[in-house]
Formats: sequence, C-alpha cells, structure tokens
Amino acid sequence: MVVGICGGGQLARMLALAAHPMGIRTLVLDPAGDACAALVTKHLHGAFDDEALLDELADASDVVTYEFENVPLDSVRYLARKVPVYPPVSALEATQDRFGEKNLFRELGIETPGFTAVSSQPELESAIQEIGLPSVLKTRRMGYDGKGQLILKEAADVEGAWERLGGVPAILEAFVSFDREVSSIAVRSRDGEINVYPLSENLHGDGILKTATSKPHDPIKPLAQDYATRLLEHFDYVGVLALEFFQVGDRLLANEFAPRVHNSGHWTIEGAQTSQFENHLRAVAGLALGSTEPVEHTVMINCIGEIPPLDAVMKVRCAHLHDYAKAFKPGRKVGHITVRSSDPDYLKQVTADICNLQG
Amino acid sequence: MVVGICGGGQLARMLALAAHPMGIRTLVLDPAGDACAALVTKHLHGAFDDEALLDELADASDVVTYEFENVPLDSVRYLARKVPVYPPVSALEATQDRFGEKNLFRELGIETPGFTAVSSQPELESAIQEIGLPSVLKTRRMGYDGKGQLILKEAADVEGAWERLGGVPAILEAFVSFDREVSSIAVRSRDGEINVYPLSENLHGDGILKTATSKPHDPIKPLAQDYATRLLEHFDYVGVLALEFFQVGDRLLANEFAPRVHNSGHWTIEGAQTSQFENHLRAVAGLALGSTEPVEHTVMINCIGEIPPLDAVMKVRCAHLHDYAKAFKPGRKVGHITVRSSDPDYLKQVTADICNLQG
Repeated sequence: MVVGICGGGQLARMLALAAHPMGIRTLVLDPAGDACAALVTKHLHGAFDDEALLDELADASDVVTYEFENVPLDSVRYLARKVPVYPPVSALEATQDRFGEKNLFRELGIETPGFTAVSSQPELESAIQEIGLPSVLKTRRMGYDGKGQLILKEAADVEGAWERLGGVPAILEAFVSFDREVSSIAVRSRDGEINVYPLSENLHGDGILKTATSKPHDPIKPLAQDYATRLLEHFDYVGVLALEFFQVGDRLLANEFAPRVHNSGHWTIEGAQTSQFENHLRAVAGLALGSTEPVEHTVMINCIGEIPPLDAVMKVRCAHLHDYAKAFKPGRKVGHITVRSSDPDYLKQVTADICNLQG
Repeated sequence: MVVGICGGGQLARMLALAAHPMGIRTLVLDPAGDACAALVTKHLHGAFDDEALLDELADASDVVTYEFENVPLDSVRYLARKVPVYPPVSALEATQDRFGEKNLFRELGIETPGFTAVSSQPELESAIQEIGLPSVLKTRRMGYDGKGQLILKEAADVEGAWERLGGVPAILEAFVSFDREVSSIAVRSRDGEINVYPLSENLHGDGILKTATSKPHDPIKPLAQDYATRLLEHFDYVGVLALEFFQVGDRLLANEFAPRVHNSGHWTIEGAQTSQFENHLRAVAGLALGSTEPVEHTVMINCIGEIPPLDAVMKVRCAHLHDYAKAFKPGRKVGHITVRSSDPDYLKQVTADICNLQG
C-alpha cells in the first residue's frame, strides 16, 4: 500500500512517520527543496501543477491525499482522474472559499457567526450595518493562521478596509465574544464508519494556534460530534476532518473546517489510542478505523519561531517533543511539545513552564 | 545531534523512528543491502570491519551506539577511539561470553541458575555430575533466539552432546523449572540517573520470544530493579539495558542481559510514558531521561515469519502494528503488534485472537 501526499510539510512528515510502522509506504510532492517530510519519506520535488510529477505521484500511489487545503484544485482533480483521492475534492473545494463554506454550514444546520459576502468598499459599509462592529473582514480565499484578515473595531477601521485587505472578494463576519475555542477532530472510513476524538480546547495568539488541550468527556462534545458528522456525511467524506468552533454558552458557532489532519489534533499522537495521522491513513487506505478514545490527559504546545533547547525540553516530566526539522523563522510553526499525564492540574502548570522556555 | 548505529535491523529502525521527532539524526552501518532501517534513515552499506565505513560513521556521528551484541568488539573499540560509544564496550564484551556473564552476575550478588564451563565431552560429563539433569548446554559465544543450545534431559542426550553443539567452548546450565520468565528494562543516563520500566512478563516458544506483557506494580519488580541497577552501576552504563530472569517463587534467577533496547521492551512504545527507544537515545545523547511510568496495560505479540493481513490487524480494537518492512521468512521476527488497554482482561482475550490471526 502506497499513499501519495500533496505537500511535504510537517503534516506530511507526521503522516509518513505514522505510516512506517503500519507497513504503508508514502511519498510526497512538494515544491520546496527543504520540505521537512523529505527526511522521512520519498520526495518528488517540483510544482503542484507539474503534470509529469503528478503523473509520477499517481502512478506510484494506490491512493492520494493532501496535507493542506491550498493545494491547487486543478491538480487534485487531475490526480483524481488517475487514482483515488481522499478526502473528496468536493470537501477541498468547499474550504477554498470562506463564503461558500459558511453557507454550507448554514445549509447543514450548523450554527455560525453572522456573515455576509463583501466585494467592494460600499458593500463592506452596508455589511457593517447588518453585522455590526466589532467584526472581522476576511479574504474569501487563501487565508491561514490569521493571515488575510482585518479586525474592525470601530467606524474608523472600516474606512478603506476592503482596499487594505487587497481589494479581493471578502467576507465580513461578526466578531464573536466567545467563552472558548474548541475543535472536533473526526474521521470517516471508506465504509462510512465515523470516529470522533475527544474535544480539543484551543488557545490562539496573533492568529496562530498556541495550545490545544484534550478534553475527555467534555459536556459539549455531543454537539460538536453531531456537527462534524453532518459535514462528513454531506461529502461522503473519507479521512480526518477538523471543525473549529467558537463556544458561547452552550452554543457552538462553526468558524471553519479543514479537510485534513489538523494542528489542534496533534495531541492525539500521545493522547488517544490511535493518532489522527494513523487514522487518516487507515481511512484513505480503506482499512478499519482505530479507536479515538483518550489516553490520559494531554496538552499540546506549539513551538513557534524556534524550539527551546533540547536539553531543557527533555527535563520537563512527560513532555514529548515533535521537531519538524524546519529552519527557525519568526512566526513559523517548527515543532510542538505534548505533555501527557493522568493529572490535568499538572498539565496547567507545565504548560506555563514550557511557554516560559520559549521566551 | 547525530547518533550513529551499528546495525540496521528493526531495533535501529525503531530507534530512528523515535529519533526523528526529537530532532536527532541517525545513520546506520549494516552489511545487508536490504537493512530495514534504511527506509527511515541513512544507511552506510558495508561490513562492520570496513575501516573506511567505520571512519565515515564516526566522523558523521556525535555519539555511536549499537543495536545488537554480536557486533565485532574490535569494530566497536575502533569507533570508541574516535567518538563516544554507549553503552560502554565493557558491557558489550561481557555479553559476548555466557560464562563470563554468569560469573559477573554471581560477583554482583545477582542470583543465577547453577552453571559451569565446559570445553570438552569429558568436562561435560563431569559438569553433569555437578549440575544434574535436565540441563542446558550452550555455546559461550554468538547464540541468540535459542540458537546454539541443546537441552539435555537424560543420560542418552549427554552422549556426544559437546560435539553436536559444534565442539566449541560451552557452558552447562541447570534447567530451571520456572514459574514465569520476566525481564527488567532499565536505562541510565550519562549523569548516572536510572529509570526502570515496569516488569515485562515474557512467553517464549521454540526459543523465540512470543509475547511480552507489561506488569505495572508487579510485586517482584523491586528485586528486578535492584539487580538491574547493580549491573548498570558496575559498568558505569549509559543507555538501555535488558536483564532477563527466570522467576521461581520469590526468587529471580538471571539468565542473560542485553546491552541494548530489547524485544521484551517493545511494548514501551505505547505502554510507557517514554519508549525504550527514546530513552536509549536520550541517554546516549547526554539528555535527561524520560519517565518510565506505565500508560495503561499493554501486551506485545511478535509476528514471526509473517505479519497477518493488515486489514485483519486493523480490526483488532486498540492494536498497534509495527511492521519492520522485512521479507517474510519462517522463524524471522518481521513485526510486532502491541495492544494497549486499561482493562488487562481484554489483553488476555485479544492476545489469543491475534495469535489465531497468525495461523
């Protein structure tokens, strides 16, 4: 069994590391010469729209998947004519336009913050009348990690905002004063079996995920699971899907979903019976899913810009380092550290210690 | 940090897979063109006594370790003149002669079965007078997985036995009618910190390990830990060490030790906070050790000769496959399956199921 992966970053790297013990071979296609997955699997080096490379990937693979949602749709469609591609192209397409994505949530009965499409400054101004302030103006396409968005707090922020965002099709969303951010990591097999992990409780800073904590037996999990299941069934989905929410009281407002393994699910390597990476591979390879039951409690802390000194990390009791072997660069996710313990209080204390290590 | 490894089999493969997330690079030296570690790390292909390759390994590595105890002593000594080598050469040397090994146990106050050296048929016959029958005649050097030994049950078996074993220096050991076989997997850092895993309870068949079960809080662990600690301190040891025992009542009789990660510790990947592979790397790299506390209960089942169909393995709840990517061959260890559960009764039932899958 060979699984081809579009993209050779840390998600592909962790998929490849999960594949080796299962006897599944992987190979990645990535334009970067220093793609970090290349250290652990075979690397096809070139552009995502290089047809010769796409042919090579399709020919070498029993099934193809992708590690990020900005892979060109045309490339994925090209591959899908030659080899099974999971998750389905329709799910990938749905995430590439924030407006369509939010409309889909609404159609499926998944609650969202208020939103409206905006294609000009005058449209923005009338949208503000509808949505109110504060609100968030986002490009409809190609945003990630807080990039491609502006927070509009007061009338002065609205002036010229559409041009400041780049003068591109956009969406205005109500700013949600949430109690917390959570995500649901779910997986669906080719046979339609669905397993959902314990809820992740997520903290962001500067638009980037900082920590994700597993919340076994969280009271709002059934609602998150219901919403994730609607999406999975809508797409006849295969693979792991991540659905991010704002929680307000006992409501969950869907923010976005990712048709792939997700940063907020990295804790599953230590904190679940089967990691999201193994379960994604099981699903796309047509195998039975693994248990998503929790193993103790876990917190994942992203290493952004740099990884603390190895020696210091190793001294943190029950810490598990995941170094992506990427060059350090401000704002870049270069690794993560998961701490696993039967004592959730220890996790709170140690999270602060690790954040301090990062300076 | 680069860790060079003499040997490129499954133990090196699992070391390399544990090294990647820690940001530790590995490379292996192995004469086999199809060394299974080569799929996950760099492979220096050639003989263990090829000085040019040993130079290359030493030059590329910050520290060198080895994955099996039959690597030539001269090669390890050669490397040790150029680069730190852990575990220490003295420990490796001690395991290469069963008689010296047993004498060392005796010197350190570690109980053993009765034994005596045998270098001829007449010596064997007088040894039988001392040790009695049944007993086991073993070559002093180069035995593994039950190879290089004869069980002598009655007088007729003794006749010509020394020649049948190959006419080489041997050791006669009392056959122990044990209650069970157990092993202690322990690790010592460069600073002298020692961590010991929960006891492993081991079942062998045809001289090969069939299953190993983690035994958190086993009442005889303190004695096993005491014995392992004596060995670690004797050698000023660095790395993982496995010490195998026969248990008879509340006594532990040491059978042999291995100066390396060990098959009976494979369950630590899922069943301990830190795997034996990660802890071996931490130790030899001069880092702090990771916790050896248990995570739930685990049983490891060796796949001997072949791995059951992937699809069938994946259907076993909480099973974790470790495929070594080795060609199937009768009697060869080609993978293992670990099952982790909070319910030890489930492990008993599922072990039988998995053994049935193997036919």
